[in-house]
Amino acid sequence: MTHDVAMPTLHSQSVLLRDDGVHILDRRVFPFEKRFVACRTLDAVAEAIEAMVTQSNGPYFAAGGGMVLAARAAQGLAPAKRMGRLQAAADRLARTRPTNNNIATAVGRVLRHCEETQCDGSAFAADIEAVVRDGWSRRREAVRDVGRNAASVIADGAGLMTYCWSEGAIMETLACLLRDGKSVTLYCPETRPYLQGARLTAHSAAEMGVDAVVMTDGMGAHAMAEGRVTMLMTAADRVTMSGHVINKVGTLQSAIAARHFRIPYFATVLKPDIRAPTPDSVEMEERDPNEALHCLGQRTASPLARGWYPAFDVTPPELVSGIATKDGVFPAAALAATLRPDPQDRNSAQ
Amino acid sequence: MTHDVAMPTLHSQSVLLRDDGVHILDRRVFPFEKRFVACRTLDAVAEAIEAMVTQSNGPYFAAGGGMVLAARAAQGLAPAKRMGRLQAAADRLARTRPTNNNIATAVGRVLRHCEETQCDGSAFAADIEAVVRDGWSRRREAVRDVGRNAASVIADGAGLMTYCWSEGAIMETLACLLRDGKSVTLYCPETRPYLQGARLTAHSAAEMGVDAVVMTDGMGAHAMAEGRVTMLMTAADRVTMSGHVINKVGTLQSAIAARHFRIPYFATVLKPDIRAPTPDSVEMEERDPNEALHCLGQRTASPLARGWYPAFDVTPPELVSGIATKDGVFPAAALAATLRPDPQDRNSAQ
Repeated sequence: MTHDVAMPTLHSQSVLLRDDGVHILDRRVFPFEKRFVACRTLDAVAEAIEAMVTQSNGPYFAAGGGMVLAARAAQGLAPAKRMGRLQAAADRLARTRPTNNNIATAVGRVLRHCEETQCDGSAFAADIEAVVRDGWSRRREAVRDVGRNAASVIADGAGLMTYCWSEGAIMETLACLLRDGKSVTLYCPETRPYLQGARLTAHSAAEMGVDAVVMTDGMGAHAMAEGRVTMLMTAADRVTMSGHVINKVGTLQSAIAARHFRIPYFATVLKPDIRAPTPDSVEMEERDPNEALHCLGQRTASPLARGWYPAFDVTPPELVSGIATKDGVFPAAALAATLRPDPQDRNSAQ
Repeated sequence: MTHDVAMPTLHSQSVLLRDDGVHILDRRVFPFEKRFVACRTLDAVAEAIEAMVTQSNGPYFAAGGGMVLAARAAQGLAPAKRMGRLQAAADRLARTRPTNNNIATAVGRVLRHCEETQCDGSAFAADIEAVVRDGWSRRREAVRDVGRNAASVIADGAGLMTYCWSEGAIMETLACLLRDGKSVTLYCPETRPYLQGARLTAHSAAEMGVDAVVMTDGMGAHAMAEGRVTMLMTAADRVTMSGHVINKVGTLQSAIAARHFRIPYFATVLKPDIRAPTPDSVEMEERDPNEALHCLGQRTASPLARGWYPAFDVTPPELVSGIATKDGVFPAAALAATLRPDPQDRNSAQ
């Protein structure tokens, strides 16, 4: 039996492309407020991305929208000039967040089309919009595949613990479970300091009708000891070919606890990063230590203390039961042997 | 070589007994503000305890101070009337927090003296004050013994991770290390939702000149994986005779991570609770789930999410390297065999 599933706001209204511009859901205030930043120009889109109006997978969609705005503005120009404008737009967007692979992927797709067509034709802007919307569809489809594969390892009645926010993957996983009539409780550690778990994950799950329980980041092991949590599943910012999962700091601690209680841990990712053989080839970001001393702008720590904010940790393959990708679920320790390389596309996790 | 050590505010100024009343450091705002609640009467002390002006070991000292104020107010009465007043005072204080053993211990000490002396003599109030101050000294001495024993297992240059706030034990442990010229970095998970680690522990350590690093509650395992943390040491709200450590939720997760990385975990407690053979005999408190959805009064979670706030978790003896008590350091799994029972005093952990 298949059930209708209402997809959450962060899925259906994250970035809206309309005749009057690109409207980006402001994740800085969501879900406390549902507010959109209206971007009439490419520059406005770039500034919104820089200002962290959207993050995670949001920039993939926002950058595509920005390219459409650039194409509309260049519609009246000669093809060669159009090309220059689109290349400049791509450069501008790529500069907003140099480490976000999503942006490079989104603009690269449009530029390839420009080169193939030489920016010719009276329907230039409409063509670019079709290319962007096609990319969005393909991305959504790939994420839906991740979700379907992830859902295949989750039993009816599961107590699922996640960590941080995994955008499409968690939403599609839950949607798949709900369509199949499976029930699940989602335990969401709040994920300090930015509270993605408490804000984004819990909200999206609850919008879908899933029982979403918010707890502090120290409660995972206790929830497992009590039998409430029966599986751990997180996204991955990166999975290396060695099977290491690089994700929001706190994932490692959860995976160790899961192993202690013999609870399976699965990570979701579009595909492992074939350019990263091991974690040594991945730059591990440390962020502003002051973030660990504040919550929603308010000081939480002693004025005498210093902070520390490593953004990511590394979970080794021996703690990972499997990696759910768009192509299937693979054992973490055998990725290199089971996956065919595809150097064109290294989209990030979510 | 012995070094002078400046003891922190929460040690030296937690509760002050003066001619004009009892002055209680307001832990609800400390360390952001250093403010005292001045209590001129027994009732004011009781109300301050009820209002959580002080907690942890604070009520032991505040309740003693309250008994002195009651004695001063009864000084002009006949001995039999004095007795009635002191008994009523004890009842009033004990009602403030029925589960806080510290209060029962503090007032019980005074009542025993009253019974022995029949509340006689012109120096009645001064006698009661002497009894209370003697109790304070003994308590401080016992906690100093815990600290000395705990410090004995810590190496120079240690990266010590703790959890929550362990009042006297952590301060005396650090003082002992500093007196011996040992250097230590203290890693303090912030301890959501009340932030005792970020506020009280980090502040007290920093006041003593210790490098205090505040991190979120999800970072412990990563700090261990990086080699920053070389030992875990927490207080215990209760240690059962079976060697189980009952402490702030998050302790279990930290202990599991410590075991994974082969890092020792020691718990500190005045003495194990001989009335608690196993965790089954201890009531595990669940607190208001809304606390997990807020930080310093501000909503942190989706309005659609529900919260969960188990206040404590249970760490089994196989994850505990040792229990540091006032009488020495004991293997967790062999407490019953190594400790002599002393049913008079079941003071809590800190």
